[in-house]
Amino acid sequence: MKKLKRSARLADMMQYLIRRPHQLIPLTLFKERYQAAKSSISEDLQIIKETMDMSGLGELLTVPGAAGGVKYIPAVDLGRIKSWVEELRAGLEDPDRLLPGGYLYMSDYLSQPQVVNRIGQIFSSQFRDSSVDYVITVETKGIPLAYATSQYLNVPFVIVRRDHRVTEGSVVSINYVSGSTKRIQTMSLARRSMKPNSKVLIVDDFMKAGGTIRGMMDLLKEFEAEVAGACVFVESLATTEKLVENVYSLLRLGDVDIKERTIAMQLGSIFDHEL
Amino acid sequence: MKKLKRSARLADMMQYLIRRPHQLIPLTLFKERYQAAKSSISEDLQIIKETMDMSGLGELLTVPGAAGGVKYIPAVDLGRIKSWVEELRAGLEDPDRLLPGGYLYMSDYLSQPQVVNRIGQIFSSQFRDSSVDYVITVETKGIPLAYATSQYLNVPFVIVRRDHRVTEGSVVSINYVSGSTKRIQTMSLARRSMKPNSKVLIVDDFMKAGGTIRGMMDLLKEFEAEVAGACVFVESLATTEKLVENVYSLLRLGDVDIKERTIAMQLGSIFDHEL
Repeated sequence: MKKLKRSARLADMMQYLIRRPHQLIPLTLFKERYQAAKSSISEDLQIIKETMDMSGLGELLTVPGAAGGVKYIPAVDLGRIKSWVEELRAGLEDPDRLLPGGYLYMSDYLSQPQVVNRIGQIFSSQFRDSSVDYVITVETKGIPLAYATSQYLNVPFVIVRRDHRVTEGSVVSINYVSGSTKRIQTMSLARRSMKPNSKVLIVDDFMKAGGTIRGMMDLLKEFEAEVAGACVFVESLATTEKLVENVYSLLRLGDVDIKERTIAMQLGSIFDHEL
Repeated sequence: MKKLKRSARLADMMQYLIRRPHQLIPLTLFKERYQAAKSSISEDLQIIKETMDMSGLGELLTVPGAAGGVKYIPAVDLGRIKSWVEELRAGLEDPDRLLPGGYLYMSDYLSQPQVVNRIGQIFSSQFRDSSVDYVITVETKGIPLAYATSQYLNVPFVIVRRDHRVTEGSVVSINYVSGSTKRIQTMSLARRSMKPNSKVLIVDDFMKAGGTIRGMMDLLKEFEAEVAGACVFVESLATTEKLVENVYSLLRLGDVDIKERTIAMQLGSIFDHEL
């Protein structure tokens, strides 16, 4: 790379770091990339740190020592994103979203990359200090959210299947009971997809009683995995008897009145303990 | 935002732009964000442009006029990423990937966000000037790739389902014949998920004869959509009679010898016309 002026160097450093979250970058890499002295690089990183902080991108951690460097940790200030979540909430209360059976049409939001990306950023931020090894979800609609979350945490994401597919090799399958419909269902995960004794974050789009998340937790036991936590986009308040506890939700779905065509959404549990 | 020094302003401008691909940013936004004169902003953008170019991030388009501004267009130089694709190719030739039926285990690559993200960047780059309205895929394994591609194109992504789900509202379904197994299968797409007369890019993980992609094309006709093109991660050369033409592939799967435990992978069609 040709030698850059300071302002160009700062711009390049920023793009380099934000595209590599949770990754240790040794200072020597920047020294070589920009043919600059260590002291200049250190000064530059201080400016990057302040800019990240001001723009609400997260923190730039300094890891001291010979094997040290810097690490970009994406983080979201809940106060700053509250108005955005309020907008989502209002949008989801549109009565045209009502579907037969009291379901809600949400696919339009979950198909916008900017929305999915932001939700992944929020989920990952909650678990940024949890040393998560994998993000897991069950097909289908949670997959983009799980991917977006894993992108910010820089860990692999794993998709639990509702059937056994030949292209996965040997699989571990479990039966579980859906909490709301009480039907018995199957989920399976390829044996190769996860190392034993990993720490796993569960992500999904919607949770009613929590049967699916409970199922994933049971499946994870077969991999001797530890569950770091669970995040859902929308949690339904219709079922009082939950099969799992301490689930982070971005929004809560309250009363749905099909006759009056009203939907009551609230902010999710992520905001319960906001300072 | 407090007034920034030039180097911090450049760093912030870079993160602001690369997080908003294919989005027109009026210069007044930067003028206000940084409380800077238009001439300074223009100079800064020139530096950003050169830095993007040098780091292989893509182009910064200037749209002139009163309603103008700048637009970041992510683009990939195939020459620069060839060695990375060669590495993937070598990794996929590992005989431990062989599964019964001549299938190949690829889920480990497709579960790494850095890999998926890069493939999305490559796919989107091929269609950056095609005015794509949607990226479409069929569940399950193509979903992260479709999402990553849509993120770079800044358009919604749409997931075709292999069953009808109640949470989608009214759906359009078609039957199609799998090109390799000759079985009749169903795919469906929610009526609400796409506006008529849209231009659509098809993305999938693996293509044998192309029956699934052909099916998506037929389904898209029901939405009066135009197909901009199709991109797959790996295209199999085993089936000579293809049901679709002009598919962009990143890699090609040639002879698989189960007895000798060898896999022959080649670079995909994306590299066929490389200058």
